[in-house]
Amino acid sequence: MVVFDGFELLDAFGPLEMFGLLKDTVEILIIGQHHGTVKSNAGPSVVIDRTFEEIEKLDILMVPGGGGTRQEVNNQPFLDALKKLGERTPHVASICTGSAILAKTGLTDDVKATTNKRAYQWATSQSDQVLWIKEARWVEDGKFFTSSGVSAGTDMGLALIEKLFGHDEAIKTANAAEYIWNENPHDDPFAKLNGLVD
Amino acid sequence: MVVFDGFELLDAFGPLEMFGLLKDTVEILIIGQHHGTVKSNAGPSVVIDRTFEEIEKLDILMVPGGGGTRQEVNNQPFLDALKKLGERTPHVASICTGSAILAKTGLTDDVKATTNKRAYQWATSQSDQVLWIKEARWVEDGKFFTSSGVSAGTDMGLALIEKLFGHDEAIKTANAAEYIWNENPHDDPFAKLNGLVD
Repeated sequence: MVVFDGFELLDAFGPLEMFGLLKDTVEILIIGQHHGTVKSNAGPSVVIDRTFEEIEKLDILMVPGGGGTRQEVNNQPFLDALKKLGERTPHVASICTGSAILAKTGLTDDVKATTNKRAYQWATSQSDQVLWIKEARWVEDGKFFTSSGVSAGTDMGLALIEKLFGHDEAIKTANAAEYIWNENPHDDPFAKLNGLVD
Repeated sequence: MVVFDGFELLDAFGPLEMFGLLKDTVEILIIGQHHGTVKSNAGPSVVIDRTFEEIEKLDILMVPGGGGTRQEVNNQPFLDALKKLGERTPHVASICTGSAILAKTGLTDDVKATTNKRAYQWATSQSDQVLWIKEARWVEDGKFFTSSGVSAGTDMGLALIEKLFGHDEAIKTANAAEYIWNENPHDDPFAKLNGLVD
């Protein structure tokens, strides 16, 4: 999970909770541009485990959203490092306005993607090369998974677990977290609530 | 939010996400026994903002669960500091097996409470003075809110927001996080799934 100042807490820690429940097979790393700590949008700070340069091999790269995305879409060294890492990682995911950052790197050119439904105009304005989808809890296209706002990332995380480890493992993981998984990527009440669809 | 080594990520950051969305009125602090950082069950580490001794006034005290609770129920200085802080805080909440820690302090003697449904036997064995409830997404009793496992804490967090700021604000917060709030504290499919009720 990549983080930056002003990242959204649940964007990062919803999916990571689900992967954390597979911890015999999964190692979680918090990736940042620099060593030290990074402060979330809500206040709490997390520790950077590795900088971009220190990552040798990664199976899944995830990018959260949050107020800080407004800075990061203009942070060229960050975007360059993220693009380089994304190109050599077999699964790339974003949560909420994290898709605006992915869009800005060009990684998702010609890729179907979604984003936060309240910040839809801002996020989609970051690139007209992305095939933006208005109504979706999350979108899978090739190696990319992009989710709708905040808590949609947890549902998408379970979909990624389903893809990698099977449906039974995804259900087992959701049950372990006492989480009722929205398994249907097309079930997105928040597109309508925010006036994006009729 | 109190943390300790081996705390469960979503226990802490699910409710804090919801309170974080009220950040014009709410300040979030991560509280620990000592300064420095604390490693979650899943791996990521968070920064301690204040030690117990440094807290002057607190409106809400929250305690997460996680594998680390097995150590903390035997950590007497931690339990003593938590009890002292809990006694002078108007709202006290736990998520998942965090209720086992509250139980061990004695704060919840004669209080109705619930806990994680897979770790129910272990958690409830920490005190026979608590009025344990098998089937509940969360339980409110006086100043105490205790939730069921992991993601139930997010539903309870919204219930606490409802209590403090009203129903409209809770719905607005859930919508901002694109979260479908389980508003009914009695809707707990995981009690049955784990064989606690027929």
